[in-house]
Amino acid sequence: MTHLHQHEESLGTSLETIMVHMSEVLILTRTEVESCLSMKRTIEAVKEAYMAFANNRVQMPPVMHLDVEKYNGEVDIKSGFVEDFDLIGTKIASGYYDNHKLGLPPGMAVIVLMDLKTSMPLAIMDGSYITAYRTGAAGAVAASVLARKDSKKVGVIGAGTQGRMQVLALREIFDLDEIRVWDIEEKIGKRYATEMSDLLEIDVSYSENREEVVRGSDIVVTVTPSRKALVMESWIEEGMHINAIGADGPGKQELDPAIVKRAD
Amino acid sequence: MTHLHQHEESLGTSLETIMVHMSEVLILTRTEVESCLSMKRTIEAVKEAYMAFANNRVQMPPVMHLDVEKYNGEVDIKSGFVEDFDLIGTKIASGYYDNHKLGLPPGMAVIVLMDLKTSMPLAIMDGSYITAYRTGAAGAVAASVLARKDSKKVGVIGAGTQGRMQVLALREIFDLDEIRVWDIEEKIGKRYATEMSDLLEIDVSYSENREEVVRGSDIVVTVTPSRKALVMESWIEEGMHINAIGADGPGKQELDPAIVKRAD
Repeated sequence: MTHLHQHEESLGTSLETIMVHMSEVLILTRTEVESCLSMKRTIEAVKEAYMAFANNRVQMPPVMHLDVEKYNGEVDIKSGFVEDFDLIGTKIASGYYDNHKLGLPPGMAVIVLMDLKTSMPLAIMDGSYITAYRTGAAGAVAASVLARKDSKKVGVIGAGTQGRMQVLALREIFDLDEIRVWDIEEKIGKRYATEMSDLLEIDVSYSENREEVVRGSDIVVTVTPSRKALVMESWIEEGMHINAIGADGPGKQELDPAIVKRAD
Repeated sequence: MTHLHQHEESLGTSLETIMVHMSEVLILTRTEVESCLSMKRTIEAVKEAYMAFANNRVQMPPVMHLDVEKYNGEVDIKSGFVEDFDLIGTKIASGYYDNHKLGLPPGMAVIVLMDLKTSMPLAIMDGSYITAYRTGAAGAVAASVLARKDSKKVGVIGAGTQGRMQVLALREIFDLDEIRVWDIEEKIGKRYATEMSDLLEIDVSYSENREEVVRGSDIVVTVTPSRKALVMESWIEEGMHINAIGADGPGKQELDPAIVKRAD
């Protein structure tokens, strides 16, 4: 009986407190998020999260998906928490494939972070960089377990943001000395080579020949929206590690199916 | 082939634009939301949304649910859109049943509003008042269709926030002349009577006897977290309309099951 009263009472008095809490929420723009992020720390966090998941310490419901056929877009909402971290994260992220016609980015991401103890919101932030870093870090965590420890040469198929992130993450794990990159557009590939060479202070070169990029690499990363094989089985050498990042949905493909059959 | 390039290109250049857009998002605190809301307009919006839903113009995936057993809490994430409104709404809302021990509200709600055309976020706002208004409005929309048009007397079981919202919404539809209210806690019930009488300028009285509140009412609203029947079948008169709002989960109950059998 007392419980009934307390519940009603607290509903009656909750309003102002929530207002105060909402005012205290930290709002972080894309630039502010970028200034806080470290790839090294992101890799540690991704590794911790994967280990927690493997140990059944993660609650993560299926992704909520909205199809916006009318505007050729989609929205995915993901939420979950690691029992031990005392934080709940929720991300709303979109892919809108006609946005470029309006001069807009091809999607957006917003992350709401809540205190697991009380559910009070702690921060609301742009999620684009966090997504880019997380995806880069996930590739590096996979390679840290599966690639040769002495990997030095990386072949990159696709010179976009994620083509950069994968390499920035890999160099936290490996002592890289050469990057070769291919892109369907020469200009984009050459810009990648110049920028990444300056940033990493190692040899980064563009090739218009995918086979040249793949052969001799210790690690190959494919980061394109391709719907057909870009990397052939005959180019693959024993011990080579491949992170195929781009094929993230039905109909997408970056690898010759024979590679998947041969992989161990 | 051009598409591949464009996609990579836009990924590469999207970052700054998103930053700009994130800076332009409207952030609304609880007080700011309250100052924008009108119950009349909320009722219209709820009615439009119900009609769109009935006409299969709504995309609304199942609710995403997180159980936070460790802290006796739960989080629900809801998202969806009406084809014709060109807006996507996502709400993260929680119920934390030990929060009162910490002097905190029993939950929170954050709403992210996005442009359906582009997915760009338009506003991020406290969702507590919107939820309270929406629930109030939903009761009024139901009563507008199902209750007698000349309803004047309302019986309220549970004198919390939603006990207020239901009445504020009903008076937009009906020419009310009397409210009677019961609460398990006399103090809460009497405060409701004083405050609502001042606000509505009609007769609002508290009774410690639920039967007195129910008998003679045209509309009865039950808004408690009760787990057992609070309203008995023998008190119900022909033509009386009941909005049972509180029983929103397994194990919760406000009405004598015989009422549900008798209802038409």
